[in-house]
Amino acid sequence: MNPHVGVDLGGTSLRAAVIDTDTGAIHAVRRTATDAGHGELELLTRMAALVDAVIVDSGLTRREINGVGVGIPGLVDLDRGVVLLLPNVPGDWPAIAFQHELQQCVGLPVCLLNDVRCITLAEWTFGAGRGVDTLACYAVGTGIGGGVIVNGRLHLGISGSAGELGHHIVEPNGLPCKCGGRGCLEMYAAGPAIRAQGVTAVVRGWPTRIAALAAGDLNRVTTELVLQAAREGDPYARAIFEQAGVYLGLAIANTLLTISPRKVVIGGGVAAAGDLLLDPVRRTLRERVFLMPADRVEIALAELGPDAGIVGAALWSLAQSGVGLL
Amino acid sequence: MNPHVGVDLGGTSLRAAVIDTDTGAIHAVRRTATDAGHGELELLTRMAALVDAVIVDSGLTRREINGVGVGIPGLVDLDRGVVLLLPNVPGDWPAIAFQHELQQCVGLPVCLLNDVRCITLAEWTFGAGRGVDTLACYAVGTGIGGGVIVNGRLHLGISGSAGELGHHIVEPNGLPCKCGGRGCLEMYAAGPAIRAQGVTAVVRGWPTRIAALAAGDLNRVTTELVLQAAREGDPYARAIFEQAGVYLGLAIANTLLTISPRKVVIGGGVAAAGDLLLDPVRRTLRERVFLMPADRVEIALAELGPDAGIVGAALWSLAQSGVGLL
Repeated sequence: MNPHVGVDLGGTSLRAAVIDTDTGAIHAVRRTATDAGHGELELLTRMAALVDAVIVDSGLTRREINGVGVGIPGLVDLDRGVVLLLPNVPGDWPAIAFQHELQQCVGLPVCLLNDVRCITLAEWTFGAGRGVDTLACYAVGTGIGGGVIVNGRLHLGISGSAGELGHHIVEPNGLPCKCGGRGCLEMYAAGPAIRAQGVTAVVRGWPTRIAALAAGDLNRVTTELVLQAAREGDPYARAIFEQAGVYLGLAIANTLLTISPRKVVIGGGVAAAGDLLLDPVRRTLRERVFLMPADRVEIALAELGPDAGIVGAALWSLAQSGVGLL
Repeated sequence: MNPHVGVDLGGTSLRAAVIDTDTGAIHAVRRTATDAGHGELELLTRMAALVDAVIVDSGLTRREINGVGVGIPGLVDLDRGVVLLLPNVPGDWPAIAFQHELQQCVGLPVCLLNDVRCITLAEWTFGAGRGVDTLACYAVGTGIGGGVIVNGRLHLGISGSAGELGHHIVEPNGLPCKCGGRGCLEMYAAGPAIRAQGVTAVVRGWPTRIAALAAGDLNRVTTELVLQAAREGDPYARAIFEQAGVYLGLAIANTLLTISPRKVVIGGGVAAAGDLLLDPVRRTLRERVFLMPADRVEIALAELGPDAGIVGAALWSLAQSGVGLL
């Protein structure tokens, strides 16, 4: 057993566990609301308390824990251990010396990594990407994150910035994106894009099942509700997932032409759509990619579910401890 | 000295040399017309004769040559040593067991690699990409080829297919591409795209310098002529390079977000445009990339010129000989 604590900072919930990094087994898990309204210090304090609590729950002593990894839903400057951007966590976040501060609080080595890079590590080590030397991973949820394994290593690039696959430009003159750019994949295939299209279909007065399921209340149109309508066979809802899948396929095409992975793993809430999303992805790759053997790239759903983030954060801590897999 | 023969099969010329792979020095170089009209066997025979000739020229014996690397302007299946596609070499090319056949002819170990992957190796080892751990290379000419170095290795992917950066989809519903796809970068930024836009400007009757330089003959409008007009300040010609640079920038943006290279090297005939092409590339990256530090990625012109292909082919032979740099 090689225990590390994995922490996953999400927009709504903060999750931590003691992970046996040899097996991926989760030995103690706790969850609390992120509730970041009181700022950085309060969040750090609660994060440290959560780490303490899961160590106690695990029955291990602090000395038996080899480190703490934290998955951050935003931009992390790995060189400095600083969080640069937290787009989906409410509150005003200056550049935060997160690594240093949390290390002071918990008294254990702390390392940070973008949350979807953590998920990539976890799916590669214990999930859908096992045994693959080159892998691309997408997490399609409120935003779209990514990560890449190249030649048997998590590829980090400049200060950990490689793998931002959700911000591939898929429309040259496309929609403004929260990142400051335009035409990013995230604007066409993430949850809010699907929800926005669902709302639009109702507003236009199209005879879609979405309207009935929402009982005419636009506020009740969610990504999940559009998915339910699609599953019930509504052609408007199906077309929304179809379009999201085509855009996801266009972005994956560019990733395939760049790193030629053996496998592409797709997770996150929107991936619950399964083949409603993956069929148009696969068709787009068949129809649009000719200069690499796209038929030899497996497109698969993620396997580890919502715990992938904490498992991957612990694997990152393992890798940083110098005895690890990287 | 570690001599390997490098061969570069081009659409119009076939080039070979003995390269000292320790230093990149070119010890004997010969060039002949590709003249592939008589088919595969005749081409292989002439290629073997060229290899023999440069070995004689170099003053070395055949036993002192450690191998032969061949750069192929098309799709190579590295697992089988077979050329799958030669889009820019006239003639009808079935899948050719090039590696095996040429090895029989020359009696030395032969290995194949896509020509721009060869250029990437050469620029990384002796040219503009020296000392960089992660690098993307574009050759913008009649087509657009590419190659990627990731974490200090030429990244090959499935059967050598990684790095086809010229076929990134930059327009989702774009122009048909020779590869079979649509909207590929090559259709917007390679030489023929620039030439086509130059011809169009003349046909539309715009008051462009291109018309005067071509003396009204559309057949005389070449990429070089459009470049000359742009250099003389013609706004129509400048807009053509501007647009090509913006599209190149959009494709590079996606490469940056995927592998986060330290440097992007741009070569090929169209790169002769220099800042007329690179300024819009750099501006596009500044304006469109926010989730990785694009300002820390150097965009540079290739340094090795037309010999990069033979030098890189020799480096590939070195790498395959098992004592090399990969």
